[in-house]
Amino acid sequence: MLRRRLLNAILMLVGLAGVPALAGQDKATPQPTPTTGELLARSRPAEWRRPDPRNLLVMQLATGRVLIELAPDFTPLHAANIRMLAHQHYFDGLAIVRVQDNFVTQWGDPNEDEGGDRAKRRSLGNAKPTLPPEYTRSLDPSLPWVPLADGDLYAPEVGFSEGFPAARNPHSGREWLTHCYGMVGVARDIAPDSGNGSSLYVVIGQAPRRLDRNLAIAGRVIEGMPLLSGLPRGSGSMGFYAHPAQRTVIRSIRLAADLPADRRPAVEVLRPDSPTFAALIEAQRHRHDAFYTVSAGKVGLCSIDVPARKIPPVQSVAR
Amino acid sequence: MLRRRLLNAILMLVGLAGVPALAGQDKATPQPTPTTGELLARSRPAEWRRPDPRNLLVMQLATGRVLIELAPDFTPLHAANIRMLAHQHYFDGLAIVRVQDNFVTQWGDPNEDEGGDRAKRRSLGNAKPTLPPEYTRSLDPSLPWVPLADGDLYAPEVGFSEGFPAARNPHSGREWLTHCYGMVGVARDIAPDSGNGSSLYVVIGQAPRRLDRNLAIAGRVIEGMPLLSGLPRGSGSMGFYAHPAQRTVIRSIRLAADLPADRRPAVEVLRPDSPTFAALIEAQRHRHDAFYTVSAGKVGLCSIDVPARKIPPVQSVAR
Repeated sequence: MLRRRLLNAILMLVGLAGVPALAGQDKATPQPTPTTGELLARSRPAEWRRPDPRNLLVMQLATGRVLIELAPDFTPLHAANIRMLAHQHYFDGLAIVRVQDNFVTQWGDPNEDEGGDRAKRRSLGNAKPTLPPEYTRSLDPSLPWVPLADGDLYAPEVGFSEGFPAARNPHSGREWLTHCYGMVGVARDIAPDSGNGSSLYVVIGQAPRRLDRNLAIAGRVIEGMPLLSGLPRGSGSMGFYAHPAQRTVIRSIRLAADLPADRRPAVEVLRPDSPTFAALIEAQRHRHDAFYTVSAGKVGLCSIDVPARKIPPVQSVAR
Repeated sequence: MLRRRLLNAILMLVGLAGVPALAGQDKATPQPTPTTGELLARSRPAEWRRPDPRNLLVMQLATGRVLIELAPDFTPLHAANIRMLAHQHYFDGLAIVRVQDNFVTQWGDPNEDEGGDRAKRRSLGNAKPTLPPEYTRSLDPSLPWVPLADGDLYAPEVGFSEGFPAARNPHSGREWLTHCYGMVGVARDIAPDSGNGSSLYVVIGQAPRRLDRNLAIAGRVIEGMPLLSGLPRGSGSMGFYAHPAQRTVIRSIRLAADLPADRRPAVEVLRPDSPTFAALIEAQRHRHDAFYTVSAGKVGLCSIDVPARKIPPVQSVAR
């Protein structure tokens, strides 16, 4: 009975641990579905890729580091503008201004918000104040694409393009990134070209897929989501913080390429076209072990996390 | 430009505000889709129901109040056991022991966890230590049921039974509550009967539908989700807090029926069979306003929140 909650904890997580010892005791049951942890431990180094430092944003908060991978295949003009903003240290000293429960965490210049002092608004410098929308792009068969066969309520086809969940419509000839957990979007005004990347949000709740094709998605958080999702919700309208003291200050946001090589984050992302990623998805669809009596049969696009990890030091030497 | 972020904020939320003034300026556009706030403001008192105080749990944290509505139509034995635990003040002084990002917040007796002192484990008193699973129930056509026509990846039919998102399988003759945001489940061990309601979890991320039919769902948080979702994530295995000081203490959990009438929460929940609820869903499916250029066309079960609110004082007098 002492192990009760621990076992429960171990079992309730799809992904970090399993019960091989227990399952092994019951000779009648088939081999239990491997956990994410087990599958990742067996993965080969070639199944991982290291993000291009020109596409990797390093956000420093007092609580730690957040890494965001940009998606220039889908939003190239936004990627370029955000790189420019980071290069100019635009975000340093700005803040997380909004945390709306089951929706988004948003950061940018507090002087852009209600009650802010417009005169003190930070200059965009060489970055563009407006950008073409880039909500969708023309479907390019040469882009990486790993389809997910399980279907989707919102789009005719879904899958993964490199590290990003995405959707395609062969009839319209368009494709776009989807608002899944951890995806980073570009806040804007009414005008479709009014977003420029100086204010960004990340999805922290149930995937708000209604935003798909209505906003530009700049990338995905690949490390540090708990630092953005585990914040007190704002009590003001839309989850904006009612008092400036409640905001989380952004110490800095840098492009990894702008950092000395030895200070660039050593992270890697699992390739969606890898056997390990396919096995991860299959383990979510058809899970059989001592805890799960019924398997789901299907898995939704936004229930699949593309794993990222710090590069194991020994492994990187071994390569 | 000063209004930029505010407008963005106002518009990005489906539900609390709209842009009637702006939309009104453009005579060419059709009437914009009403927001949740507008729809709720127009709702009639009869479209709301007040939860039975025997099904309403009042959890007091230092940060505020959380209300949970139990679901005895689906999990009657669990509801009875949880009522008994609350009646005995079982939860008072226990804690939130686990917050796992994009998954669950869980509470109960820390002495049940790894490193806990079994000898100090709190007695269940008159509550039962084990319960039949109650993961699904036989489909009862007499239960309230408002179908959602949009489809679902995981179940042949989905919809709402009173305040709860649920699924049905006419072929198997079973129905069950679904693991959407805010749903409260019963933690357990390996054995299907090992849950008893003394340890509960609430979904705080993308709906983990793979848990459906594998765990008993006791009810739904109808007030205070931000107090459970906006907590620092645990750094231990599975999101358990590594240090006892990180836990959030539960001051008390009471059944509303055990409180004096004047201390019972005055809350009400929108009826899913009401015209206002139907309009809310339709507004999510087909949203047209100055901000949204493309509407989603469909809405997923777990993207729909059944609204709950404090009973407006004036309104309750007027009734």
